[in-house]
Formats: sequence, C-alpha cells, structure tokens
Amino acid sequence: MIEVTINPGPIKLTVPAGTLLLEVLKQAGVMIATSCGGKGECGKCKVIVSSPKLKPDTLSVSEKELLSAEEIKKGFRLACQCHLNQNSTITVPSFSLIKDDKAKIKSRVKSCLLNSEFKPLISIKKYFLKLNPPSLEDHRSDWTRIKDELNKQSNENNQTWKIHPAILNNIPQLLKDSDFCLTIVLYKDNVIAIEAGDTCHELYGVAFDIGTTTIAGYLLDLVNFKEVAVEACTNPQFKYGDDIISRIDFARKEVKNRPKMQQELIETLNQMIFSWSGKAGIDLSKIYFTVLVGNTGMHHFLWSLPVEKLALSPYIPVITDSIMEDGRALPNFCLIPYARVYSAPNVSAYVGGDIIADLIDIAIWQRKGITLMVDLGTNGEIVLSKDEKIWACSAAAGPAFEGVDQLLKEPELAQV
Amino acid sequence: MIEVTINPGPIKLTVPAGTLLLEVLKQAGVMIATSCGGKGECGKCKVIVSSPKLKPDTLSVSEKELLSAEEIKKGFRLACQCHLNQNSTITVPSFSLIKDDKAKIKSRVKSCLLNSEFKPLISIKKYFLKLNPPSLEDHRSDWTRIKDELNKQSNENNQTWKIHPAILNNIPQLLKDSDFCLTIVLYKDNVIAIEAGDTCHELYGVAFDIGTTTIAGYLLDLVNFKEVAVEACTNPQFKYGDDIISRIDFARKEVKNRPKMQQELIETLNQMIFSWSGKAGIDLSKIYFTVLVGNTGMHHFLWSLPVEKLALSPYIPVITDSIMEDGRALPNFCLIPYARVYSAPNVSAYVGGDIIADLIDIAIWQRKGITLMVDLGTNGEIVLSKDEKIWACSAAAGPAFEGVDQLLKEPELAQV
Repeated sequence: MIEVTINPGPIKLTVPAGTLLLEVLKQAGVMIATSCGGKGECGKCKVIVSSPKLKPDTLSVSEKELLSAEEIKKGFRLACQCHLNQNSTITVPSFSLIKDDKAKIKSRVKSCLLNSEFKPLISIKKYFLKLNPPSLEDHRSDWTRIKDELNKQSNENNQTWKIHPAILNNIPQLLKDSDFCLTIVLYKDNVIAIEAGDTCHELYGVAFDIGTTTIAGYLLDLVNFKEVAVEACTNPQFKYGDDIISRIDFARKEVKNRPKMQQELIETLNQMIFSWSGKAGIDLSKIYFTVLVGNTGMHHFLWSLPVEKLALSPYIPVITDSIMEDGRALPNFCLIPYARVYSAPNVSAYVGGDIIADLIDIAIWQRKGITLMVDLGTNGEIVLSKDEKIWACSAAAGPAFEGVDQLLKEPELAQV
Repeated sequence: MIEVTINPGPIKLTVPAGTLLLEVLKQAGVMIATSCGGKGECGKCKVIVSSPKLKPDTLSVSEKELLSAEEIKKGFRLACQCHLNQNSTITVPSFSLIKDDKAKIKSRVKSCLLNSEFKPLISIKKYFLKLNPPSLEDHRSDWTRIKDELNKQSNENNQTWKIHPAILNNIPQLLKDSDFCLTIVLYKDNVIAIEAGDTCHELYGVAFDIGTTTIAGYLLDLVNFKEVAVEACTNPQFKYGDDIISRIDFARKEVKNRPKMQQELIETLNQMIFSWSGKAGIDLSKIYFTVLVGNTGMHHFLWSLPVEKLALSPYIPVITDSIMEDGRALPNFCLIPYARVYSAPNVSAYVGGDIIADLIDIAIWQRKGITLMVDLGTNGEIVLSKDEKIWACSAAAGPAFEGVDQLLKEPELAQV
C-alpha cells in the first residue's frame, strides 16, 4: 500500500501500489474532468505529480501527445494514464475540476408542475375525513367506511377507488391513533397514502432536469403552486465521461454497470430531496409527485433501459412515450412507494424530455407566427415552430462553447 | 444438545436440552394436530415418549386432565406440555397427525376462472407480432413500433397501452433474439409480459381456495378453459392452532408474526405451482392470472392485513372489496411480477370469498325460487337466496363434525 496526498485539501488516502491516479482521485471524491471517460483522448484530466519527480520515460504515448513540453517540465500528467507506485503528492489545478455552479440552474422543468394547463396531469388531491366508529349496527369494513365518507366529501359516487394492500395494512392502527380522523391522498382514482389527522395543507412535488453534466432540481408546494427550494449538482456519472457516448460505452462493458448508473442517479435525487426536506422542515412522506426530464440518454439511464441503440445508426430509443409509474419503479427512491413518478416524453434519440419542458415553459402551443427556441447545454437543441408545426434538431454543443468562460476572462485569447 | 428419534420414520434430529416436544416435531416437519395452538386445552397432540420412561410427577396439570390413566401408563404425553431434557425416542400415533387427504378437494374456486360470465374479469390476451426492423426512414422507438403493430392486430386504435420500465428493459434483447417476432401479453390496457416468438398457445391461470385446514389449488389452461392439475395440501399455519382464533392470537403476539404467516402461505402456493409446472411441463412464466378465495381471516393473512378486529365485537374486517393487484403485492410469490392477482370480495368478518366462489359455482343469480347452499368446512356457512335477495350466516362447524370419518368406519359408535 502507498500513501497519496492530494492538494488542495490536503486529502490523504492509502491505496494499493500501482493504482491508476484517476481511480485515486475518484476514491477521494475529487471531481476531475474526463470528457473521454479515461481513454487518454481528451487531455482534460491534467494534474501535477509534485513528488516524487517522475521520469519522462514513464510518460504514455497519449501524454506525450496531449501535454506540452512546458507542462511536462512542471510535472503535469494525465490522471487516466499515470499509475502510482510509491507515496506521492498530487496537485489538482482548478481548471481540471468539473464546475459545480449554482448559477447554471436554468432548467425549465418546474413548468411541468407549475403551468396551469398541466395541473390535471398532477391531479393529487387530499381529503380530510371524520369517520363514525363501527358498532354492532354499523359493521362496515374499515375501507368501506373510508370510501363512503370520501364519496360524501368529494361529491362523487365512485365505487372504483383503488387501494393497495400495503396501504390497507396501516389503516387499523391509523384509525386507533387518530380517533377516526384521517387524510386520504389520491392520484385520480388511486389512494397513494392515508395519514393521521388533517394534513391537507402539506402537499409537495419535486421536479428534476437530469442533464449530462448538471442535475437541476426543484421542490414545489402544490397547494400554493410555489417554488420552495432549488438546487443544482453535478451528474454523478461524470466519472464515466463527460459525454453521453462515453457513458453508453461504460454501460455496455458489464451487465452490472447499467443498474449501477441508475442507482447513482437515484442516490443523487435522494440527496437533493433529503437536503430540501431538512432545510425546509418538510416531511419526505408529504412529497407525492415527481417530474423527471432529461435528454433521451439520461432518461434511459434513469429507468435503467438499454442504451446501446442510442449510439448506433439509425438511433432507436426503447421508448419515447411519457412514463407514469409509482415510486417502486425506481429502486431505493426515497419517496413513499405509491408516490407518482412521471417522466416527460422524448421526441427521438437526441431530442429529449428536457426540450419538452422548454416548450411547455414558453407555452409554444399558444404562440402565433414563427418561434425559434435554442437550448445550449452539453448537447444543443434548436426548435422551430410555425402554425402549430414543430421541427427540432440537435448536435453536440458543449465542445463548441468550452473555454468560453476563459475567453471572457482573458479577452486577448478571443482574438486567436 | 440432545438427540431425538421420531417414529415412524425414524426421523433423527439434534435440539437443545429443554426444548418443547411440540417444537421438536414442528422442526422435524411432523404435522401434528394442535387445535388449541399449543395451550394444553384440546388434548390432540398426544404422542408416546418411548424412551426414557418419564416419571408421572413430570406430568403437567393439563396432561393429568386430558390423558386417561391407561394412556399415561402407555407413556402418552401431550407434545405441547412436555419438555425433553435427555436423548429421547418419540412415537407419533397416526390419529395425532393432521390428515392430508386429496379426496377432500371440493373447492369451487376454479369456477371463478372457468365460469363464462367471469371471463371478462380475467381478460388476459396474447398477440403475436411480426415487426419491421428500424431503418433511417423508420426510426420509431421499439415501444412505438410494437404499439403500432398491436393496434393493427387487435383492430384497436389505442394510444394508452401501459408498459412498465422493467418490461421495456428486456425489449431490445428480445427483438434481437427473436428476429423482431414476439408475443405481447395484455391484461386490459396493461402489458404484463413480452415474449420471444409465438407463444399464444401458452396461457395459464391458477386458482386457490385457502381454507383454515386445507389449501386447494387448480392449474387451468385459459386458452381451452380446462383443468390441467389439481392438488390439496394442509394449510401450513396449522402449527399455530386449528382454528382462526388461535392464529389471530399468534399473529398479535409479535410484530414479525403476521408477515411470517403470510410468507408461509405464499411458500405453500409456490410449492404447489412448482410441482404442477414440473409435472405438466408448463413454464412458470406463462401463468398470468391468480384467483384467491378464502374465509376473511385467511384472506387477511394472505395480504398481511391486521386481523385483531376480526376476533373482537363488532368484528370489523379491514376490507371486504375484491383486490386486484400485480404479483409484486405478494412478496416472493413465484409468478412474473406483473401477473394479475385477484382475491374475491368478502361479505363480512365470517363470510368470506370462498362462499362467493360457491355462489358463482351454482350460478345463484340465475336460480329462481328458494335456494339453500350449505358449505361445511372448519367453519360452516349457510346461504339462503330468494328472488334476488341473499342472506348468509356462519358458525364454527369443524368440531361438530369431527370424528365423522371414525363413525363411518365403526358404525356401532354411531349409536352412542
């Protein structure tokens, strides 16, 4: 085993001799840029091996190509090419880190929950019910008792309310604890939760835009249709490459990789939800609706769908329809099991649900004449609409604009 | 630890000194009768401790009451009262065993699947689809391609077919393996499976009547509406008592008991299904529908619902409605996750779905005049119908008819 010290920090850790430096940085949680997924092609994972001084003959072919003579002299190496064989000190320059920039939160996903025309989609309702306790004259079952009162309260005469055994399971205890006063949570005809007492004022939803680089998330109050919290964080899949093709390559390598990549996304969503829940003092169990958008690749990773054909002509997604599921469909997702999870439809392999959210945000169906909508992310999409017809196309946009921050800071470079 | 030998068998096992003999027999899989659930009240668990000869002063109060002087002399003990402290040999007389009698299969549950008026309930359909492979001119997603062909085949123009991500997951591989020829399995608008090639001739259902004492099960061919296999076995919950009240007592004792009792039922259903599947050469994954009936207690145990209030006035079930779920709702059930699981409605705490199956079997709604239907099991129910009105009542019946087999064999006893 060898000891590695990483600056700034310092972060110290012990790893087996011979470990790839990129692997060491991942273990240390350092978010190093690797556009090519660690193949020695992009030259982004530049770090300085401060000690020991490595001999030039240990440089790989890629390093000789991608590092300048000046850089080699300063001790720069590519993290994906360099194996550590002895105790080492590493310095990670800030330009090699992925930026986790909250200013980048610009997703339109929350429109899916806040736009008034989409309220019927959400359709989560709560009713507070005061029930009469059973007696020898009234020995209706617990569920019949609840249904009868629900029909009275909601002015419906619906005999087809659906309830899962797992929710039924809690009813006797709830009735006892709450003295027959409870709140029922409905999605259309389906009971998604039953709670003790009157909780009608607590009704929340979350919305996520899963970008290739950044995940933007919103916590929304669905009683008042207001934003409660917003956050962005780096897509945890960055370590398999900056672009979608590197990630598809990784997903194909081993059977276990696809569910692993799904779990990483779900864990990130969970962390954001936990953080909001803690800060805003909101009970996790009161979040009943999740909207998810993303490019088609991220959409497939989220649902753990095969991604191979997205990368090969003629570029066929498994599904382009919207998906409406319950929380159980996303393994280990932190919401209650029967919370609704909705992912927006995709248009094709490279025009995804995130663009649908953009179009909802600008209410494109209400616009007269010609509209051009441009979304520049790691992938760039352009949508043109005229007279209720809509055309969309996309291309890799990230690389074209990379370094734009640098250009703004050092204007003389812009003349190059 | 001590060694115990059980005859007939012999079955040998090692247990800690001081273990209750009833517990030893359970571990050995000996199906000993215990009407009272092991409280020393019914005197049914009589066994002979052949060696060592136990001293009369080790007899419990219950044993002194429930065993005759003759029996005590022969070495009889009650298994629920006797702790073993040294190596022992036990003889279990056949009259102390629960009878596992196939002649008892008399359940009407299969009518729920075979009665022509109930076919719409089942409503499982299969379509064989030959798809065109994608091309640059036709880059519909896999699922859109399937839906379009399904609409053509089924002469519907349904845009609301629902499919779960877990089923979508398999589609790309299936298309590859089957050269774009597959069979889709539908329950109403829901896809419950997609299979390679043409499997339209394989479509099965199972039906179970979960009695307090006996579980009767049927495997049914739903293409030809024919019975393929039938079997009965002892309800594994017998060890918690012969009657429903003893079992409710056991379920209340510890939180973990209810899910444990559910698992025992599910394991028994699984064993029956495995056995049929093996004998008849039927693929488990081709069983798409399960009908379950039982008295209200067994129904609640099956769905792991609280049973406490069934035993206390005014006798309130959690639910009396029918339940329609997918296979995931019964943990570890061996059918495919999206197979349909239906349990018939109950009428009240002591008139259950098994009686509904009886009424379906005699098509009570078609009968004119007065009909009396009597079902004598461990519980006995009597149903009277006249002019489209139906009355039902029930009472413990098992004890009243116990020993009837003996009477038939020894007619002179009948004169007593």
